[in-house]
Amino acid sequence: MSILINIPGRPLDKLITRLKQDIPEHEIEVWPNVNNPDAVEFALVWKHQHGSLNAYKNLKAISSFGAGVDSIISDPDLPNVPIARIVDPDLAINMAQYVLTMVQHHKLRLNQFNQQQKECIWKPKSARKGNNVGILGLGQLGAKTAKVLLSAGFDVSGWSRSLKKINNVNCYAGDNGFNTVVSEADYLVCLLPLTDKTENILNAAVFSKMKSTAVLINVARGEHVVDEDLIAALAPTKEQAHHLQTQQQIDFAYLDVFRQEPLPEQHPFWQSDKIQITPHISAVTNVETAVSQIVENYFLQKKGLELKNLIDRRSAY
Amino acid sequence: MSILINIPGRPLDKLITRLKQDIPEHEIEVWPNVNNPDAVEFALVWKHQHGSLNAYKNLKAISSFGAGVDSIISDPDLPNVPIARIVDPDLAINMAQYVLTMVQHHKLRLNQFNQQQKECIWKPKSARKGNNVGILGLGQLGAKTAKVLLSAGFDVSGWSRSLKKINNVNCYAGDNGFNTVVSEADYLVCLLPLTDKTENILNAAVFSKMKSTAVLINVARGEHVVDEDLIAALAPTKEQAHHLQTQQQIDFAYLDVFRQEPLPEQHPFWQSDKIQITPHISAVTNVETAVSQIVENYFLQKKGLELKNLIDRRSAY
Ligand SMILES: NC(=O)c1ccc[n+]([C@@H]2O[C@H](COP(=O)([O-])OP(=O)(O)OC[C@H]3O[C@@H](n4cnc5c(N)ncnc54)[C@H](OP(=O)(O)O)[C@@H]3O)[C@@H](O)[C@H]2O)c1
Ligand SMILES: NC(=O)c1ccc[n+]([C@@H]2O[C@H](COP(=O)([O-])OP(=O)(O)OC[C@H]3O[C@@H](n4cnc5c(N)ncnc54)[C@H](OP(=O)(O)O)[C@@H]3O)[C@@H](O)[C@H]2O)c1
Repeated sequence: MSILINIPGRPLDKLITRLKQDIPEHEIEVWPNVNNPDAVEFALVWKHQHGSLNAYKNLKAISSFGAGVDSIISDPDLPNVPIARIVDPDLAINMAQYVLTMVQHHKLRLNQFNQQQKECIWKPKSARKGNNVGILGLGQLGAKTAKVLLSAGFDVSGWSRSLKKINNVNCYAGDNGFNTVVSEADYLVCLLPLTDKTENILNAAVFSKMKSTAVLINVARGEHVVDEDLIAALAPTKEQAHHLQTQQQIDFAYLDVFRQEPLPEQHPFWQSDKIQITPHISAVTNVETAVSQIVENYFLQKKGLELKNLIDRRSAY
Repeated sequence: MSILINIPGRPLDKLITRLKQDIPEHEIEVWPNVNNPDAVEFALVWKHQHGSLNAYKNLKAISSFGAGVDSIISDPDLPNVPIARIVDPDLAINMAQYVLTMVQHHKLRLNQFNQQQKECIWKPKSARKGNNVGILGLGQLGAKTAKVLLSAGFDVSGWSRSLKKINNVNCYAGDNGFNTVVSEADYLVCLLPLTDKTENILNAAVFSKMKSTAVLINVARGEHVVDEDLIAALAPTKEQAHHLQTQQQIDFAYLDVFRQEPLPEQHPFWQSDKIQITPHISAVTNVETAVSQIVENYFLQKKGLELKNLIDRRSAY
């Protein structure tokens, strides 16, 4: 039996060195130069070439190298084997802190004070009033984010597929629930997985239901947002404003994830003074934690036992 | 008996309207036009003209309109009466959240990503490593800040006059304790009251003991910092660097308070790209809360009872 690493376009030295400590060297294969395809029973995957997992007739399980599995699931030629992902409490803490920081950044008007500093202007202004944070997705990351925002003094609502119960969080499910969360949010945070059901979920129709002072924080996947709709909602052209019968639909967006990464140089997001970009850094997979979960799953697989942190292939997350 | 409002240079309409709801109208006097000085037994004060509290021979107590009393205590002609201050848990929460936001702002490299956005540069970088937050002052604001930073995952040390015991916070007192906190801090937060003992406490000697990657967050009073020393520590001239035998002593400063406010237009802090300025907004007195505490103390005074939230005149805070 061997483990296949199929992670194109990234330096893998550190990962391989680390894996070798726990898995015998001859059991590690690295795509695309695989010596013995028939021995591969376990594949560690991140943004693989679609179709490239088909060459292993004894493949029994796939593990994502991150929390998301969307780039795996979207492969039309994906072998029909169980898929595991990384679930790391530290990842959730980092994500929650990132979201809190962005919410506070806007609430305290730090961009405004930054601009004023450049002009040597002293103009105190009290913090923005809006206190409602709506969180789309109440999984590992969303639930932790809800708790952290709650203890920082915010009113928190959340939306998930199955209705949740979280102390002091207003939980919703279904279309009506979605509309409630979206229209009441001063800060709307996207922490959904990317699936057929959630792709393009943040679009013109949604922005038009939001408060004109609302802020979007997308930390899930770029494909959740319809880029042109967001640009139009933040700073509509005259024509769009006329069509939408409004000047502005939402106030600001903090974006950490994008349809194409690196975000192409000519993308209009870069230039907008209503968007703050971070380059996919809100919650980075910790190699140590990930490796220990992968190794654990590798040995469970070897023993023929059920893997940990499996996703549900039907719901695709 | 009457209450004197001695708060120069601020709009007072809201405050007076609010006080009139609880205190009979004829018992409210507003400096400088006081009808019956002899009836004044209670003074509500913020940045008064020194000497201007001397005209009331029956004055029995002074209340600050904020958490600090330094501008009162520093009056050489201050009547010898008890001094109360505002103690508001919401103020402490706001302060703690401000500090956490600035710490995270630096840790996540948001300034760097902001600059990169202007240049359409995508360059992910993991969060800064330093995790030690040192807090000078463990009173109402410092202790709450310590707890919030702790639960956000930071290692927290604190320094106060009397040695404190706070769960999971490394508490210190005395000169050695000060040196330990200062030299181990990745983020050094000043939440001391301004007294003879704490004025100029953040000076060249201290900056030279700090890590070269350290960040100063001053949210207490401008007078805690020796301005020229901070400028030199952040970006020393060649001459200073030679004298100090170092290139740079600390990395960055977030400043909310200044010796002179508004910060004068020609002050070098405005121009430094190693300083982020906010105009004294980190924890703003909530008029509602303050008024209810002032009214309570006014009636305690009227009944001859001891006031709440009195400060110790000898230690001056
Ligand atoms: N920016 C970054 O650095 C970064 C890092 C890690 C992860 N992420 C992204 O964050 C996403 C969330 O991660 P996670 O670990 O929290 O995932 P998770 O534990 O699987 O939680 C997903 C949540 O979304 C809900 N959901 C899924 N489909 C839905 C639908 N159609 N309608 C309503 N709710 C739906 C789920 O509802 P149920 O609870 O009812 O199942 C669940 O609450 C990942 O998929 C990944 O794309 C980004
Ligand atoms: N930026 C803003 O918007 C804003 C808003 C409110 C307040 N403030 C400032 O924040 C300051 C702190 O407020 P607070 O309510 O937390 O005050 P506090 O409750 O009086 O606490 C002061 C703390 O500082 C310690 N301390 C005082 N003198 C010291 C010395 N010489 N050496 C070591 N430690 C010393 C005290 O030690 P002990 O515990 O041993 O007494 C105490 O822990 C205020 O004085 C005010 O200037 C700023």
